[in-house]
Amino acid sequence: MSPAAPAYRRLSVEERRSQLLEAALSLFAHRVPEDVSLDDVAEAAGVSRPLVYRYFPGGKQQLYEAALRTAADELHDCFDEPHEGPALPRLARALDRYLTFVRRHDAGFSALLQGGSVVETSRTTAIVDGVRRAAAEHIYSHLDVADPGPRLRMTVRMWITAVEAASLIWLDEDKQPPADELRDWLVDQFVAVLSVTAVRDAQTAELVRGALAAET
Amino acid sequence: MSPAAPAYRRLSVEERRSQLLEAALSLFAHRVPEDVSLDDVAEAAGVSRPLVYRYFPGGKQQLYEAALRTAADELHDCFDEPHEGPALPRLARALDRYLTFVRRHDAGFSALLQGGSVVETSRTTAIVDGVRRAAAEHIYSHLDVADPGPRLRMTVRMWITAVEAASLIWLDEDKQPPADELRDWLVDQFVAVLSVTAVRDAQTAELVRGALAAET
Repeated sequence: MSPAAPAYRRLSVEERRSQLLEAALSLFAHRVPEDVSLDDVAEAAGVSRPLVYRYFPGGKQQLYEAALRTAADELHDCFDEPHEGPALPRLARALDRYLTFVRRHDAGFSALLQGGSVVETSRTTAIVDGVRRAAAEHIYSHLDVADPGPRLRMTVRMWITAVEAASLIWLDEDKQPPADELRDWLVDQFVAVLSVTAVRDAQTAELVRGALAAET
Repeated sequence: MSPAAPAYRRLSVEERRSQLLEAALSLFAHRVPEDVSLDDVAEAAGVSRPLVYRYFPGGKQQLYEAALRTAADELHDCFDEPHEGPALPRLARALDRYLTFVRRHDAGFSALLQGGSVVETSRTTAIVDGVRRAAAEHIYSHLDVADPGPRLRMTVRMWITAVEAASLIWLDEDKQPPADELRDWLVDQFVAVLSVTAVRDAQTAELVRGALAAET
């Protein structure tokens, strides 16, 4: 709607697709998927509704899934941290990027994780589960664990779920505490739950004595 | 199908309704909701399909929601623990009952919490959220906290989510570790995450020094 909107500039197919996905993501960031129509996406991108349909013939469901895949790719990038230096600061940096992502996607992030959305399907659930699995794999790799046993895996997956819960509450409570405090709190919780598991699991005990002991 | 099936005994409306819900719950315990038909429920209860429809004119969706409400009531009962003796053994007993519930409802419990089910709606999500809220309220009351602050609330809600995650993994991994080990592990995690929060929150610090210190 701005006078300088580059609505009719010729974009390549990939550019146009990205533009539509960006428009969709920014709408999903402020409203639940149910309240976003294809007309809204067309208007936000400064294009016609038929053009949106040309790119996403499956309509809103297809657009939502594509936007979700884009967001999932962004999340994967958040986890991408060099294997250098002590492990906990690496975790802290990944959490910083994750919280920035959460803040940026806001309502869309909440709707997605809270479930019960009309656009939720087994495919969207699979995308989200894929991100969770990737997060766990990154953690094992940064802890130099090639073959995590059941207790370590359960601990890591519980912590990842707790981080998701914290993110949702954080959005609900006007992003309080500040992101850097939340980040440190989550890192400390990670060390605490691993320490609890270390009492019952030799592999985790070795981790806590080794990779993490020097840092805490 | 058993020769002694009391299929045509006259039941009161409430008895019949309970019987149908029980049949539905036992089917949902072994299959995902998508794979349970009203015919299956009729057969399991030893009644006709029209009779199921008479009680649940909204069909499978209505039956599923009613069964879910019954399960939610059972879960509320799990949390019901007298306010006597030290707090952590109370938590341990509530967790024992909870894990028995999880074991009994198995696939239905997983489908419900994992989302992406065709029978999931904003109403089913609300029922599940109600159970989560009730669990948190029970915890505050057993900790003698009348007015939990944001950090304590976030900690308790994260732990509850982590317990849910643990339950799902536990079902996935043939109920390993044994229920009593898992219960103790979860109680220890509860104390550990509260201790981490205590460093940043006076209310939680007081709890950890007071209600929980004597026991750990």
